[in-house]
Amino acid sequence: MENDFSSVLLSDAVGEFAKLPGIGKKTALRLVLHFLKQPDEVVSGFTNSLSVMKSGVRFCEICKNISDNKICNICANTKRNHNIICVVENIKDVIALENTQQFFGVYHVLGGIISPLDGIAPSDLFITELIERIEKKKPDEIIFALNTTMEGDTTSFYLFKKISKFDVKISTIARGVAFGDELEYTDEITLGRSIKNRVGFEVGN
Amino acid sequence: MENDFSSVLLSDAVGEFAKLPGIGKKTALRLVLHFLKQPDEVVSGFTNSLSVMKSGVRFCEICKNISDNKICNICANTKRNHNIICVVENIKDVIALENTQQFFGVYHVLGGIISPLDGIAPSDLFITELIERIEKKKPDEIIFALNTTMEGDTTSFYLFKKISKFDVKISTIARGVAFGDELEYTDEITLGRSIKNRVGFEVGN
Repeated sequence: MENDFSSVLLSDAVGEFAKLPGIGKKTALRLVLHFLKQPDEVVSGFTNSLSVMKSGVRFCEICKNISDNKICNICANTKRNHNIICVVENIKDVIALENTQQFFGVYHVLGGIISPLDGIAPSDLFITELIERIEKKKPDEIIFALNTTMEGDTTSFYLFKKISKFDVKISTIARGVAFGDELEYTDEITLGRSIKNRVGFEVGN
Repeated sequence: MENDFSSVLLSDAVGEFAKLPGIGKKTALRLVLHFLKQPDEVVSGFTNSLSVMKSGVRFCEICKNISDNKICNICANTKRNHNIICVVENIKDVIALENTQQFFGVYHVLGGIISPLDGIAPSDLFITELIERIEKKKPDEIIFALNTTMEGDTTSFYLFKKISKFDVKISTIARGVAFGDELEYTDEITLGRSIKNRVGFEVGN
């Protein structure tokens, strides 16, 4: 697909879109042609929104979540339980957990996960900040809500070693058979964990 | 998914991306977070490219293809056969035909297709410009390369009525069984046309 556009400007714009993750050349062209059909205000609205976002957002000083202010909405919310801190890898996980409407504590965003293969060491993450927060605020409970991958487990274990000296309850989200999954096709580790960590039956749980 | 972001700026940017055709909320968030991780130059490069494209591109004065200059690269190319004009609906079709590397004439982009249901009349398309071009340049052949839909056929028929008074060969792209298709599952109209318009056998065709 080189030099197949009659316009270099168009070709450049398509190239920029095609750099985005999961966007191929065809989708990029479709999006650019969409913009070409829109009024100028729509296009400037789009580009402005992105520029303003890029220059405006920062990390919450407490939980490292993304925020418009020094302190994010969640940390500033006095109705939430600030004694329960849920540790997550990134802000996508915060959004996913918020969407469940089942958690009313606060978060701590690590900004990544320990992964020697990707060159991510504990010092690259907001772990020191988490320790300081625990020392200072003395929360009741720390919940690890990390992915169930080797890196996630490594990070959980690393954090556990660092945090266990404090007088704080440490828990991790339940691993088990997902909603809608069939036991027959569930892997042994998941199924094993789910039978080992079985919970009292409750209607609607 | 309302008010589930800790940042209004982030939420706005995600909203802008989610307006794009074929981009849902989840993909929008993924793209915005991608930009958030990029250096400022990458983001400004992206937005600039889009703004410059939007304000810079225009239609080729001859073929109405998209162009950076008065005349597009294809119309300006003296190596192409300017006596064969291929009529297409939009610039995506130009790109698709160029990608085949099988056509060496020039194009005429209608800018749409006659579709009473969508309120698109012949006067909304660059049909007058095509007639003028034929009158002035007296090409050898006009090829209709329009979609095989009712609207495409209507447009071809309308153009045929307008053009047939000129001394020019009028052809249309072959309709038939697509590469890789099985006869068993091909609809009757396509299969009927493909047997009626059979061509001499050629190795590699």
